[in-house]
Amino acid sequence: MKHLLGIEGMRREEILRLLDTAEAMLEISRREVKRVPTLRGKTIVNVFLEPSTRTRVSFEIAAKRLSADAINVQASGSSLSKKETLADMASNLEAMNADLLVVRDRAAGVPKMLADRVRIPVVNAGDGAHEHPTQALLDALTLRQSFGSLEGRVIAIVGDVAHSRVARSDLLAFSALGAEVRVAGPPTMIPPGIEALGVKPCFSIEEALAGADAVVMLRIQQERLEGALFPGEREYARTWSLTRQTLSLAKPEAAVLHPGPINRGVEIASEIADTEPSRILDQVRNGVAVRMAVLYQLTGSEQ
Amino acid sequence: MKHLLGIEGMRREEILRLLDTAEAMLEISRREVKRVPTLRGKTIVNVFLEPSTRTRVSFEIAAKRLSADAINVQASGSSLSKKETLADMASNLEAMNADLLVVRDRAAGVPKMLADRVRIPVVNAGDGAHEHPTQALLDALTLRQSFGSLEGRVIAIVGDVAHSRVARSDLLAFSALGAEVRVAGPPTMIPPGIEALGVKPCFSIEEALAGADAVVMLRIQQERLEGALFPGEREYARTWSLTRQTLSLAKPEAAVLHPGPINRGVEIASEIADTEPSRILDQVRNGVAVRMAVLYQLTGSEQ
Amino acid sequence: MKHLLGIEGMRREEILRLLDTAEAMLEISRREVKRVPTLRGKTIVNVFLEPSTRTRVSFEIAAKRLSADAINVQASGSSLSKKETLADMASNLEAMNADLLVVRDRAAGVPKMLADRVRIPVVNAGDGAHEHPTQALLDALTLRQSFGSLEGRVIAIVGDVAHSRVARSDLLAFSALGAEVRVAGPPTMIPPGIEALGVKPCFSIEEALAGADAVVMLRIQQERLEGALFPGEREYARTWSLTRQTLSLAKPEAAVLHPGPINRGVEIASEIADTEPSRILDQVRNGVAVRMAVLYQLTGSEQ
Repeated sequence: MKHLLGIEGMRREEILRLLDTAEAMLEISRREVKRVPTLRGKTIVNVFLEPSTRTRVSFEIAAKRLSADAINVQASGSSLSKKETLADMASNLEAMNADLLVVRDRAAGVPKMLADRVRIPVVNAGDGAHEHPTQALLDALTLRQSFGSLEGRVIAIVGDVAHSRVARSDLLAFSALGAEVRVAGPPTMIPPGIEALGVKPCFSIEEALAGADAVVMLRIQQERLEGALFPGEREYARTWSLTRQTLSLAKPEAAVLHPGPINRGVEIASEIADTEPSRILDQVRNGVAVRMAVLYQLTGSEQ
Repeated sequence: MKHLLGIEGMRREEILRLLDTAEAMLEISRREVKRVPTLRGKTIVNVFLEPSTRTRVSFEIAAKRLSADAINVQASGSSLSKKETLADMASNLEAMNADLLVVRDRAAGVPKMLADRVRIPVVNAGDGAHEHPTQALLDALTLRQSFGSLEGRVIAIVGDVAHSRVARSDLLAFSALGAEVRVAGPPTMIPPGIEALGVKPCFSIEEALAGADAVVMLRIQQERLEGALFPGEREYARTWSLTRQTLSLAKPEAAVLHPGPINRGVEIASEIADTEPSRILDQVRNGVAVRMAVLYQLTGSEQ
Repeated sequence: MKHLLGIEGMRREEILRLLDTAEAMLEISRREVKRVPTLRGKTIVNVFLEPSTRTRVSFEIAAKRLSADAINVQASGSSLSKKETLADMASNLEAMNADLLVVRDRAAGVPKMLADRVRIPVVNAGDGAHEHPTQALLDALTLRQSFGSLEGRVIAIVGDVAHSRVARSDLLAFSALGAEVRVAGPPTMIPPGIEALGVKPCFSIEEALAGADAVVMLRIQQERLEGALFPGEREYARTWSLTRQTLSLAKPEAAVLHPGPINRGVEIASEIADTEPSRILDQVRNGVAVRMAVLYQLTGSEQ
């Protein structure tokens, strides 16, 4: 594995190896001194061209706990306003002997385009509606911690599946690990032909959750809340929100995931987000570990 | 002490202990190698939701001189634009095993709200017109360096006392350390009933400075300069500015403080700001030391 | 040498000493562990008041590879919006025991103004149309790597010479190192009386390139592309762009430089920028090394 551009095309063994490495990394974040010298003297550049607090901070913490030098490049204040092409920027960072680029962009395909240009590893931190592979890995890790294995487990993904890079990466990862994936959401938010990916579309949250082992609730993007595809926030919540009632259809102890940040009372009730079946903060914790594993595997293995 | 949310409620001994620790920290910043391993492997997150250069840089330098990993989260470019609630962000940072949050916000009470949500220490780096405790501590340290002790000293605070978090934290700290505090400013800028805090309101800068050991000149906020409370910049300067003449009413060698950034010629004359009785740059220097002491005491004491 | 404010006034020996140090620094960036303890415990503050990705990242990487603590101050989100004067900010950073300030500003003269105010070294990272000395040093290093020495070499600088800080610093550096410098560009973009600097103005790119050992193509600023001085992008490209054809007039193996970011198809053809005679990525690589050398020489030599 040279880059991490998406879950698509990853083999089950590659995914499991990253999850195993991440488990080992989790222990580092629990120490009194949360820092190991593994990537000392490596330069990791976080190129975030779409606003993000959580993912950028997670990658930055991951780099620093491995003793790498983390450099942040954000859209505002960058020379991109001078129309420097992204690809030239990536080449420049490579010329500065950066060891790895973490890239988030509003446009699908940007991480791949940069990976084609440079010889250093590129990690996709979310590109448009395409993929968000580290999110899928941390979701898979969270589910594995709950179940031991995803093999044969039933996982529902509910919300705006069609426009969600998280949904796309999740269903590829969960399927690769042997889970049965169901998706549910308003008809305009389910991509036609999704069955071809081995995924079962459901017509209601109730159908999706019936007997499920876990549910991933997707974030409704604010942009969509005002868009034509969308029936209105209250209407959406009535039909597609995860409440105590809808959750009761799943297995007892079913895991509840959400990529965050959550819209309380829209796609998920606060009481569900904040209490026991919720794995939301475990996801965040696992996110740092998964990113440490990715940085380590992509930059450290040459040594 | 678990958090540092304000000077209110702090005991004299707690304040003195922080000042003593800060004195020890001052020495580190004078070394050729200004870095000690005390907080190695700790993750300090600076959450600055209101623009600030000086305070953010001061906290960041403080963290780095103690070898902590410092992560900056600023309002622009953050997921807060996605309406993530602040409290969820704090929980996420805790889940990433952050060891301490430094929080600045335009709204009073935000640091307290976050402290109620998370189990890690929160430091208030300025919240609305409420408190700015590290500023008060660095002011107290600066005065203690001048006088040995604040006990019985007369300290005047001049300017927009009613809307100043610095004034509020200062008068609480100075009073707790035994000083006699006077405040002065235009009537609209002195909170009614301030006598209840053991503070003496004065009707002119001359009255406030007469025989004083020190004066803290407050910054006039640009917003106020255009607001209804305000008589106009020139008018303000004529009545409330610290000049050589007004300063001559205080004790010889009286200390002059200002939280910065200063409006030269508005609340303070340049010749006063830049020459001897001024302790403004000592305040800045002490700021790093006080913040090192706070970070150390709140995160290092578990060890 | 206390500050690096410009190439103007630098002696040949000072320039060569920096280039020699930079050569040694280059080696560090090629190591597996790209980090030396040279500036451990030093605080380097990058004050970038004009947007820049490349130069800021280059300085930040340079500081970190020398183990210094690098602090970024950018215009947005800074207290400069509160009209804090720049000079007060510099004094504050000095009071926080910063060891060196790197300063970029839209206005010529700002780094000099700050250097006059503080006792710590100031490095000009580009000020208006005045100077960009580290760019000139990295260009000189790149040319020296090509030729061994600049002595007697013919170097053409083509484009908006009059408004380019890069052109100004370059021609001073190249001349100091014994090169013969030619400049070319539209008449409105060549400063009158430039011959006084020992530089030969040419009336066409063909004239400038004839027999040249190297060419520095300047970036056409987007602002200019819409301005009155400018004949239009296509017109400009037809007359002043570096193409295979114009480059063929120079010596075989002539070095092609560009300070970046490049406007492909405007001042330089993509095929020229991306293939062999181009030294553009060498420039970027050398930039980190030159900045390491500057930081080291200005802060490390006290030890």
